Amino acid sequence: MNELELKAHFASITHPADITEYLEDVPIAEWPKLLNLIEDREKRAKVVAEIDESRWKDLLSEFSPAEVAELIEEMESDDAADVIAKIPLPLRYEVLYRLPKEQRHQVLELLGYPEDSAGGIMQVELVRVPQNALVSDAIQRVRELVEDDVQVLAVWVVDKEDRLVGSIELADLLIHKSTRPIRDLMTKDVVCVKPLVDQREVGELFKKYDLLTLPVVDDENHLIGRISVDDVVDVLSEEAEEDTLRMAGTSPEELAYPTQVFSIARVRLPWLGVALFCSLISASLLTFFEPLLEQMAVIYAFLPVIMAMGGNVGIQSSTILIRSLASRKTDLREIPQVLFKEIRVGLIMGLFYGLCAGSVATFILSKQNYALGGMVFISMIFAMITAAALGVLAPTLLQKLGVDPAIATGPFVTTLNDITGILVYVSTARFFMTALV
Amino acid sequence: MNELELKAHFASITHPADITEYLEDVPIAEWPKLLNLIEDREKRAKVVAEIDESRWKDLLSEFSPAEVAELIEEMESDDAADVIAKIPLPLRYEVLYRLPKEQRHQVLELLGYPEDSAGGIMQVELVRVPQNALVSDAIQRVRELVEDDVQVLAVWVVDKEDRLVGSIELADLLIHKSTRPIRDLMTKDVVCVKPLVDQREVGELFKKYDLLTLPVVDDENHLIGRISVDDVVDVLSEEAEEDTLRMAGTSPEELAYPTQVFSIARVRLPWLGVALFCSLISASLLTFFEPLLEQMAVIYAFLPVIMAMGGNVGIQSSTILIRSLASRKTDLREIPQVLFKEIRVGLIMGLFYGLCAGSVATFILSKQNYALGGMVFISMIFAMITAAALGVLAPTLLQKLGVDPAIATGPFVTTLNDITGILVYVSTARFFMTALV
Repeated sequence: MNELELKAHFASITHPADITEYLEDVPIAEWPKLLNLIEDREKRAKVVAEIDESRWKDLLSEFSPAEVAELIEEMESDDAADVIAKIPLPLRYEVLYRLPKEQRHQVLELLGYPEDSAGGIMQVELVRVPQNALVSDAIQRVRELVEDDVQVLAVWVVDKEDRLVGSIELADLLIHKSTRPIRDLMTKDVVCVKPLVDQREVGELFKKYDLLTLPVVDDENHLIGRISVDDVVDVLSEEAEEDTLRMAGTSPEELAYPTQVFSIARVRLPWLGVALFCSLISASLLTFFEPLLEQMAVIYAFLPVIMAMGGNVGIQSSTILIRSLASRKTDLREIPQVLFKEIRVGLIMGLFYGLCAGSVATFILSKQNYALGGMVFISMIFAMITAAALGVLAPTLLQKLGVDPAIATGPFVTTLNDITGILVYVSTARFFMTALV
Repeated sequence: MNELELKAHFASITHPADITEYLEDVPIAEWPKLLNLIEDREKRAKVVAEIDESRWKDLLSEFSPAEVAELIEEMESDDAADVIAKIPLPLRYEVLYRLPKEQRHQVLELLGYPEDSAGGIMQVELVRVPQNALVSDAIQRVRELVEDDVQVLAVWVVDKEDRLVGSIELADLLIHKSTRPIRDLMTKDVVCVKPLVDQREVGELFKKYDLLTLPVVDDENHLIGRISVDDVVDVLSEEAEEDTLRMAGTSPEELAYPTQVFSIARVRLPWLGVALFCSLISASLLTFFEPLLEQMAVIYAFLPVIMAMGGNVGIQSSTILIRSLASRKTDLREIPQVLFKEIRVGLIMGLFYGLCAGSVATFILSKQNYALGGMVFISMIFAMITAAALGVLAPTLLQKLGVDPAIATGPFVTTLNDITGILVYVSTARFFMTALV
């Protein structure tokens, strides 16, 4: 397509996300030229706001600070702050300095909140009317924002000191006479949030109350911003992704490096380092027991079975607990019951699989060696009970220490489970050998 | 509180979710009485719709079918269908038969779609206007639904054959003259979805286009329902939770049994059974190599190290790939590149940690046994490379077979990794021993 055709093509695309998708298949060096072919400036700003974080580093080198500032100028405050936050530091000031004064202040205010807090995901554009306003006044304010291409989902009512006192949905403005006072129509009991509240909790509020938008207020209840549901949709998926990746001993950063193997290795290495350290402790334990075990090498054959089964039980308990804690189905005071429950589950599973594994050890993998079978049976029960207990205690301890409990299923606890598995098995073996030999 | 006070208390609570939360701390036997104290019938229906799935079984035994039907009557179609779907079968018909004819037909239509499809989460109440309608006609239709307590997020425009041709946001109705024809204001390029599309894809559409509501159309583009963003918020968290739990070898069902240890054990046992079977294969491999390894029992001490490290690398690769597949950042055609990338990452990590572990084996845990160190070094490299490769191949194979790839990080693949770890380590040991002895 030549420039004229491309211009017409971009103009024909209604949704900015579709243009961003088109750009992603084109080399980044061509983006500045292509972005200039989008004539609607607000649409261009939305296309830019949709660009994936991993592309920003390369993209910035194609633009001058003045061009970046021009793109940001058309953005809503939350998108503007997000984009500015992605710009590395010396350049960031150059861009900020070129923004209109009011927008610069807005962006600096938003950047002042932690990235993953209510303040970090809110935007400052919103419709605010005094209590004595009429429906027609509110509609006039909605019109001003809609004409600036800002999405309006509700109207907020404030008192003379700018404190939030109520809210009205657009549908209510639509169906009532324009001369009705706002005060008569507003909902007084508005769900709102403080700016430093974690974005996870913000997501839970949206889920619980089926919200479309949530006002952010300071300690004196002054209205300072609002969060839209589309930002929360992004937050919920991000958080879930982060949990999953952290549980596997890596991090979402890795998704930003789709091709650089050294960067990927760097993200994963620390977790594996912890795992290696712990597993070397297992190894030294085994060298310590070497003389004992040399007498009966077949014992070794079942060690991986005990370790693997303990590891699996531990991961199951931890995952369930971590999810319950994250979704607030369980709180820390209920841990004693959870622990007791998991221990009983571990006992049931240990009895069942201990019997299975013990029988296989006795009748299939040895010549009716009942001592071996008994050893496998007993140590499976103990290994599963301790693994289930550790699966509860490790995330609890991490939560109490203020660390994300999701890392409890990572290498650290898995390997802790290995160590207890080895200790349980070797102690049982020792007991059987001294009792029987 | 006595009944009168409770009635006033419930009337004073604005958000139904807060009443549901109150109920959750009260024995279920008292719920019918308490629910009757909520005078606003639509509020009562919303309270009931918020009740957690795990409570339904107990709750149903407290109500007669006629009472259940009465509660459902006030619900929106999607909530009604969800609640009906939770009622066990003979009773379900008794309730359905008591619903008004029109609602019964709506519910039956919705129940005809898979639970996790666009049709399964849509609702049929929506504002639909013909192309030649005026803004005032649309407002009239919005009013009718709002008065029925249905949330309206957009107006859909259809042609004479009821085919979707456009949409209008409420804000646009609000700021334009009531005599303007709808045709001039509507967006023609509407994002829509077919009823059998998976809810995960529906979630991705909401994320990509920042939607508030999405129309569902059949193959001839007839408008049959709409999905609201608050349902998608629930879907996104559910799906993420399901993935996480499945990756750990359990299932969301378990969260429904907070106290019954036998039910929990039953959910987890099958996964562990697969793990046991696989780990017994490891054990039989080791008994097969027993005579060889008896000559040098210290070799055994490092087997858990190799197995644990391989397991961790495998889980990291699988998790990253599963997340990329789920969020459509990667598709199956790119697997060869992903495989090649993971193998290189595995090589880097294997070299690094092989060197660490080999040095510890040689200088700390043995008396300068260089053969042992070399064996650990070589087998760590091979184990990590094969684990990284398996971490890619296992989810890919499962995806191709139409099975959820998330189970790839469960016991099955972990134990497959154990087996390859053992084979790699024992073969290396054998090579070293025949070469050196």
